[in-house]
Amino acid sequence: MIAILRKDASPEAVEHLLSWIEKKGLQTNYSKGENETVIGLVGDTTKIDPFLLESMDIVERVQRVSEPFKKANRKFHPEDTVVDCGHGVKIGGGHFQVIAGPCSVEGKNLIKIARRVKAAGATMLRGGAYKPRTSPYAYQGMGPEGLDLLREAADELDMPIVTEIMDQRDVQTFLNKNIEVWQIGARNAQNFPLLKEVGKTKAPILLKRGMAGTIDELLMAAEYIMSEGNENVILCERGIRTFETRTRNTFDLNAVPVLHYLSHLPVVADPSHATGYTRYVEPMALAATAAGADGLEIEVHDDPSRAWSDGAQALTPDMFDQTMERIRQIRSVICDTESCEA
Amino acid sequence: MIAILRKDASPEAVEHLLSWIEKKGLQTNYSKGENETVIGLVGDTTKIDPFLLESMDIVERVQRVSEPFKKANRKFHPEDTVVDCGHGVKIGGGHFQVIAGPCSVEGKNLIKIARRVKAAGATMLRGGAYKPRTSPYAYQGMGPEGLDLLREAADELDMPIVTEIMDQRDVQTFLNKNIEVWQIGARNAQNFPLLKEVGKTKAPILLKRGMAGTIDELLMAAEYIMSEGNENVILCERGIRTFETRTRNTFDLNAVPVLHYLSHLPVVADPSHATGYTRYVEPMALAATAAGADGLEIEVHDDPSRAWSDGAQALTPDMFDQTMERIRQIRSVICDTESCEA
Amino acid sequence: MIAILRKDASPEAVEHLLSWIEKKGLQTNYSKGENETVIGLVGDTTKIDPFLLESMDIVERVQRVSEPFKKANRKFHPEDTVVDCGHGVKIGGGHFQVIAGPCSVEGKNLIKIARRVKAAGATMLRGGAYKPRTSPYAYQGMGPEGLDLLREAADELDMPIVTEIMDQRDVQTFLNKNIEVWQIGARNAQNFPLLKEVGKTKAPILLKRGMAGTIDELLMAAEYIMSEGNENVILCERGIRTFETRTRNTFDLNAVPVLHYLSHLPVVADPSHATGYTRYVEPMALAATAAGADGLEIEVHDDPSRAWSDGAQALTPDMFDQTMERIRQIRSVICDTESCEA
Amino acid sequence: MIAILRKDASPEAVEHLLSWIEKKGLQTNYSKGENETVIGLVGDTTKIDPFLLESMDIVERVQRVSEPFKKANRKFHPEDTVVDCGHGVKIGGGHFQVIAGPCSVEGKNLIKIARRVKAAGATMLRGGAYKPRTSPYAYQGMGPEGLDLLREAADELDMPIVTEIMDQRDVQTFLNKNIEVWQIGARNAQNFPLLKEVGKTKAPILLKRGMAGTIDELLMAAEYIMSEGNENVILCERGIRTFETRTRNTFDLNAVPVLHYLSHLPVVADPSHATGYTRYVEPMALAATAAGADGLEIEVHDDPSRAWSDGAQALTPDMFDQTMERIRQIRSVICDTESCEA
Repeated sequence: MIAILRKDASPEAVEHLLSWIEKKGLQTNYSKGENETVIGLVGDTTKIDPFLLESMDIVERVQRVSEPFKKANRKFHPEDTVVDCGHGVKIGGGHFQVIAGPCSVEGKNLIKIARRVKAAGATMLRGGAYKPRTSPYAYQGMGPEGLDLLREAADELDMPIVTEIMDQRDVQTFLNKNIEVWQIGARNAQNFPLLKEVGKTKAPILLKRGMAGTIDELLMAAEYIMSEGNENVILCERGIRTFETRTRNTFDLNAVPVLHYLSHLPVVADPSHATGYTRYVEPMALAATAAGADGLEIEVHDDPSRAWSDGAQALTPDMFDQTMERIRQIRSVICDTESCEA
Repeated sequence: MIAILRKDASPEAVEHLLSWIEKKGLQTNYSKGENETVIGLVGDTTKIDPFLLESMDIVERVQRVSEPFKKANRKFHPEDTVVDCGHGVKIGGGHFQVIAGPCSVEGKNLIKIARRVKAAGATMLRGGAYKPRTSPYAYQGMGPEGLDLLREAADELDMPIVTEIMDQRDVQTFLNKNIEVWQIGARNAQNFPLLKEVGKTKAPILLKRGMAGTIDELLMAAEYIMSEGNENVILCERGIRTFETRTRNTFDLNAVPVLHYLSHLPVVADPSHATGYTRYVEPMALAATAAGADGLEIEVHDDPSRAWSDGAQALTPDMFDQTMERIRQIRSVICDTESCEA
Repeated sequence: MIAILRKDASPEAVEHLLSWIEKKGLQTNYSKGENETVIGLVGDTTKIDPFLLESMDIVERVQRVSEPFKKANRKFHPEDTVVDCGHGVKIGGGHFQVIAGPCSVEGKNLIKIARRVKAAGATMLRGGAYKPRTSPYAYQGMGPEGLDLLREAADELDMPIVTEIMDQRDVQTFLNKNIEVWQIGARNAQNFPLLKEVGKTKAPILLKRGMAGTIDELLMAAEYIMSEGNENVILCERGIRTFETRTRNTFDLNAVPVLHYLSHLPVVADPSHATGYTRYVEPMALAATAAGADGLEIEVHDDPSRAWSDGAQALTPDMFDQTMERIRQIRSVICDTESCEA
Repeated sequence: MIAILRKDASPEAVEHLLSWIEKKGLQTNYSKGENETVIGLVGDTTKIDPFLLESMDIVERVQRVSEPFKKANRKFHPEDTVVDCGHGVKIGGGHFQVIAGPCSVEGKNLIKIARRVKAAGATMLRGGAYKPRTSPYAYQGMGPEGLDLLREAADELDMPIVTEIMDQRDVQTFLNKNIEVWQIGARNAQNFPLLKEVGKTKAPILLKRGMAGTIDELLMAAEYIMSEGNENVILCERGIRTFETRTRNTFDLNAVPVLHYLSHLPVVADPSHATGYTRYVEPMALAATAAGADGLEIEVHDDPSRAWSDGAQALTPDMFDQTMERIRQIRSVICDTESCEA
């Protein structure tokens, strides 16, 4: 952390500030230029609130130098993390997985869809039992009964489940039903009590980037989970809010190589939510694969026009067959020069 | 809601769509132009998922015509809502209130600050006991003990408390301690389980706009609370995320008259979080008052450089005295032509 | 400027970098911490491209410490600039002015509107002869003939004109017709050839903030004009693009005190473009005044429903009379404690 | 276009509005619902200013139904446009091209770089002679002399040039020097006089999306050029401004399939500006190719640490060799199922 001082700071005030910082256990480095005087703070700067420092009379501006995320940081953990999702499915460090299924669990059609996505090559089954909806009057999901349908389908097909948890009071239910991968949705990206609570379990967490969140905020959300002891975090780029209205969100595929650079955690991309339209899902699934994602999450529905939510972005099983074929081809180009599995 | 059809839609497909809509209990209005064919959906369109409709082959685009918020909508409730916050303090419909106090409850200094803000004219006492912090390593608040300190200070001064609730599991604690006004922070603006839970109480809720949220999303969050039965919602503009980095947030004061136009709920503005710097708090407090806000929330600290959070944006009690004086002057200009209390 | 080095930077590479920087005529300040090594660059850092520095192998990140704007910077010019707009009208440094008139010059109704706004207290006449329109098929303005109508009206009423210049090839026309204040619109906020060209004249320039531009970019645009020799720049906040769609733009009134803090140039606010709706113009004009703006730009039309552009945001002359009355009242509250004219 | 009326609109006022619309040569379609009354406007709605319509007392809101872009619209021109860039290089409609070279033309090293990019498979040579820079104190480009160096290199290698034009007064110079492809930069995306002026030539225009611009605004900028008679427009996605600061811009690759859906014009992607860091250029070049772009624009420099601008994002010739190899592999996967050339 560095503090830029005002031009008119008196020597006494500077002296006072230096000793204040040093009392916090940090070292200081003082550099006086013609236009700017800069103090460098050396040591564990998490002890200092940058806004507080900035509020002092002689301080003009404060800038962070080091990243505030530690456990998620590749600097302190250079090797890729491989997350074990159960049923023999691993993600990260060269392991690539496709998560597929309907947006919402709706009933008997789940097993039908599940069989098709498994046959096409998907290795994890998605489906929402608890749905965050903008309107209180919109369909809110089947709840525990939906989890049971997922459990049944996943057990038949020997696949791990990926499903969203929205309420910290549901942790015990998720544990009881042996849900493998717990998804935290974009709207809960800064729901700190929820992040802490899932951080107390050992469940792999598929953590989605916030609606208008930055990459650093995503990593700080991971940090919340990891700081409680759960290091099984899978990051997910699902599109961010921008001024563009021709798509549901803007798919920030830059985030894939950036997250790999900054962090050791696996990175999944969700072209369904990131585009919002069936017709754009395949090209963007291929783009995400080419960008180096460790996995994809794709919505598939046997009859999109009757889906209870997000039908507009679902692939049919036939479309998914073709998309999987092309994903494999792109993946094999990418893997040619990496030590990874296609 | 209207659906714009593709140019090449066959008459049979159109017929099919019209009857599908009508089966949902809606009427249709069909208009064929040279370049566009449009179907108007007349009736209770909350039954129709616009994304689903858009996913149909012959539909090109769907646009909402009516607002999705009902209980918060001025159309269905033309008169201003006045929220009773206890201790004789009312807000909205001409009643203007200033909420003041430290960002975080820190200990014994609370009562000192509280006495000063009361003396200066503030009518409600703020202070955070549970703090949403970007970093898990930052100070997270005093918790229940902080609520007790607030209770003590507020009782001495006969003022209602305004303090944040972050976790639905804390509802009982808030009820037990008779917290008057429960704040929902910007990061929980779409935390639906929390919104529903506070909606089951009768406590006045100070609902902050989301970090990068729209006015409609704020009203939909209010709708979540109101749809559970609690109509005591106070809306709060606290700044939104934009590209501007010279301030902590961008204070969207347009939201004040826009919310008054769209909704009957009271509207409070928070110049402390919306600017992030002490030096901008007074001009923006005056601006918010001139824009017609029903109240202000302002951070005051007896020693900002020692505050445990957000010291950079706090006013000292002396500064607050002066700011209150000028707020009163601006308010009297505004009130001159309205039926309101200064 | 500071450069944060990679952890694994070799001493030789660091040595090499230090001498590279020193050869550019800068001094360096080297600070090695446990987690970070930071080099401070002291001197005229405009000689160094930060992106280039960042591209070097051992450099992890580069951060600016000083502002890139010089002539517009209050640090190097502490006193408020007062811009003389002709006809005895001065703005800035305590002088407050209201610019009013129709969005577009349309014909004979201009003089009618001009008389009304003058009578109500406006001191400068606005009207567009060249209109930047999103669609090539929309009305593009009257051109030179519009300038003549403005000239005629302004001369009759002894007021300076404020009107937009979009094309550097029109500079001579603006000079010939003695246009007093040249407006640069939001879409040209980074049209550098245009900025340079108007910078070669002595005309006061009303410079609007870019559509999604930052305060620093506005100041850099001012710098482009000032670096060519023209220091008569008036900054204008006219709303920025955000996710909010209930208003045409988001009025960033924080920018008023921020610009006053960073720069000595006068700051005008435009509540008409910043809201886009007649019903929000008055409250936001009052808010801008309370925030400390040095002036306002307001659209007035005698028959908004027949205006050729932006009728939706125009006040009628009767509405403007009332708004001016209340602006004066707010201004007198603000001026009470400043050395300024109401 | 549709107009939603206020609930309390009197029958006379509605009648008046309907006849006003009809006098403009449009038909109307009137639909009265319980909560909403909607008027559909059928015909050439470019004659109606939606903001004006919205300003009328009885109108609550106006929504566009049809796209405002016509010549760029695939609806009216279903086949892909193929733009001939000279020297036998075609782009669009299955023709894929890579544009490469330094950010700025700097001198003798241009020919060296040009030979390497040609050898690696690039088919068009880029290099800036006029540079739009945020600071007036930064390097502004070599100007006409830079164009001569480009001409020389391109002629030796039989490649078309791609270079930026910033000032409408330079059109004649560009014609004189036979510059093949004229780039319009992001900052000039709404510089309408410049767009019109290049629209009067026949030169292929590489049109970059605005800094925070939408896809529709990009297409409207294309419309400005095309409406003057020049239909040789190549659209370019180069990243947009978002809250993310870990990359220079956010690469909106969704725009590739969206632009192909909405328009017949070729679509190029620029991973160099869209990421800003050398280390992210290759993965994002591959992603753009997988998303279906018709071409890429990539910065290559023989000694990035000495480049005069944007060195941080340039590939070295050796890196470019490898990236081209992998682009070809991805392209061959994509082309397998399209009628296109790899």
